[in-house]
Amino acid sequence: MIGRPNQGAAASGTLHDLSALVEDFFASSFSTDNPVITEAVRRMLAAGGKRLRPRLLLLAAQTSGGDPSRHLPLAAYMELIHVGTLIHDDIVDRADVRRGVNATAVDYGNRVSVLAGDYLFAWIFKNVTATYEHPIPHILASTLADITDGEVLQNRAVGRLDLPLAAYVEIAVKKTATLFAASAECGALVAGASPLRAAALRGFGLAYGIAFQMLDDLLDLTASESELGKPAGNDLIERKMTIPLIFALAGGDADFRNLVARFYHEPSSVRPGDVSALIGGITAHGGLVRTREAIAGHIERANASLARLGNAPARAELVALAEALVRESAARAR
Amino acid sequence: MIGRPNQGAAASGTLHDLSALVEDFFASSFSTDNPVITEAVRRMLAAGGKRLRPRLLLLAAQTSGGDPSRHLPLAAYMELIHVGTLIHDDIVDRADVRRGVNATAVDYGNRVSVLAGDYLFAWIFKNVTATYEHPIPHILASTLADITDGEVLQNRAVGRLDLPLAAYVEIAVKKTATLFAASAECGALVAGASPLRAAALRGFGLAYGIAFQMLDDLLDLTASESELGKPAGNDLIERKMTIPLIFALAGGDADFRNLVARFYHEPSSVRPGDVSALIGGITAHGGLVRTREAIAGHIERANASLARLGNAPARAELVALAEALVRESAARAR
Repeated sequence: MIGRPNQGAAASGTLHDLSALVEDFFASSFSTDNPVITEAVRRMLAAGGKRLRPRLLLLAAQTSGGDPSRHLPLAAYMELIHVGTLIHDDIVDRADVRRGVNATAVDYGNRVSVLAGDYLFAWIFKNVTATYEHPIPHILASTLADITDGEVLQNRAVGRLDLPLAAYVEIAVKKTATLFAASAECGALVAGASPLRAAALRGFGLAYGIAFQMLDDLLDLTASESELGKPAGNDLIERKMTIPLIFALAGGDADFRNLVARFYHEPSSVRPGDVSALIGGITAHGGLVRTREAIAGHIERANASLARLGNAPARAELVALAEALVRESAARAR
Repeated sequence: MIGRPNQGAAASGTLHDLSALVEDFFASSFSTDNPVITEAVRRMLAAGGKRLRPRLLLLAAQTSGGDPSRHLPLAAYMELIHVGTLIHDDIVDRADVRRGVNATAVDYGNRVSVLAGDYLFAWIFKNVTATYEHPIPHILASTLADITDGEVLQNRAVGRLDLPLAAYVEIAVKKTATLFAASAECGALVAGASPLRAAALRGFGLAYGIAFQMLDDLLDLTASESELGKPAGNDLIERKMTIPLIFALAGGDADFRNLVARFYHEPSSVRPGDVSALIGGITAHGGLVRTREAIAGHIERANASLARLGNAPARAELVALAEALVRESAARAR
């Protein structure tokens, strides 16, 4: 993909680099009335991210015959909902401070984080209710409710080594996939897509989002510290139930299950090297390979959902976005 | 006022006890899809509160010719926005833990608090965008943005002994009064009031809300620990800039200003009895009396705003609501 300036892309009506459009928008147009919040959000945006949610919205608009450049603000709101949840994820308890988790967030300040996130959510809804008709504001609000609900469920699932696969998928759907689904659906709706086409795109976003969460789990075990910005195995340290672990526990022997149980439930007995041993065990018991297969399955479902679109413009770009997840997972779990 | 069951009130078309209606609604109808959140919100609702925001909304609807019992859900959302901000107010920093402030909130858990508040806000917007047309959802979102903005401003004003009166009023407007203003305006709008009448009711809510915040500041210094649920002078301990303090600093001598400066800026030199001495100084230098006068002024403005309503139904109830603040402040600052 080749970067193009905003005007050129809008004028030509084709978009070879939606990411660049979105970056331009954030750099030139994003600001709130509150300088403290603007600063906090800009810092979070500058930290990176692939802007997948906005890209999905813009591609869905394009594939529904719309002009993506008209919907940059709505695309940006999808990223900002994500940013708001990240800001609130940084809020920690005294218990976390004791465990040494997230010390940076603690120093930044819980109170600033909660107000920055609240203001950002309110600002998004203030703008979206001023500009977009029903059901767009309703979809965004429902999505934020789902995300929060999913995070509550995830917190309750911490350390539950018997978590069923279906419960994992429910959490992934709520916490992660609904925002991708909403992005695709809203992009379709604002471009005037029929309910059937909007549902097809929502279906694509949902399946894509589940695969995205699974890849995120996979990367936590297989990417380097410099790629992740935190040590590999961080999910294990936080006693989260990830999909590679769930698969490995299902396929593993008693020794492996005991190692996991000790690590997850007896913090005092944890020894240096345990994280590496856990990652080795998850790999040996098929956790990575089965995760890769599950990702491929969800992406197949995502692409099947596009069948209804026929030869719509930008369909190939949507498929390419999806296939990139499969390629990345294959490279990480050989 | 006599309590009446919901149906009776709706059937008769008059409402002698809107509070009871609101309580009935919370007890019978409030629940979210998420049991953790529902529990957290119910506990907060059970802790009390005068439901002034819902009452204001229902009175504004009634005074605009509407049937208040049809708008109980919207009235409840106003209270729940308030509850959500209270839940998020409980989120504390490590610094607060060290100072021993809000220890209960810390034990309850920051993470649960942030998710409960987020879910509640999202749930409110999900419902309001499903049921109410523009501009109701937009007014609610703008109000939440204002409240958060006001809290950020208030945090930045902590310990600023030179805070101008206008800056105090701006904070009170954003943090407190906009929600009263929005309640009155939305009640008018859903009852089909003209823009002029809706603006008059919004004006009433705004002036009422400023007076309400000033009374809140006054009570912090003059009510008993059992009335407040926390020790008197808690605002002083948190180094907040309240209106009685601002008035007393303006009217006080150098000794008083030095006492305040030492208490606010040199925590290590604080001695037992300083809070009592501060309250005594604020009283002696006219802080309470001038606050009472300011409350009376804002309530006069609130009532003047109702002039446009003519002999509308429930206008007397709105005036009574406002006069109650004046009476309470007069009883506290003689």
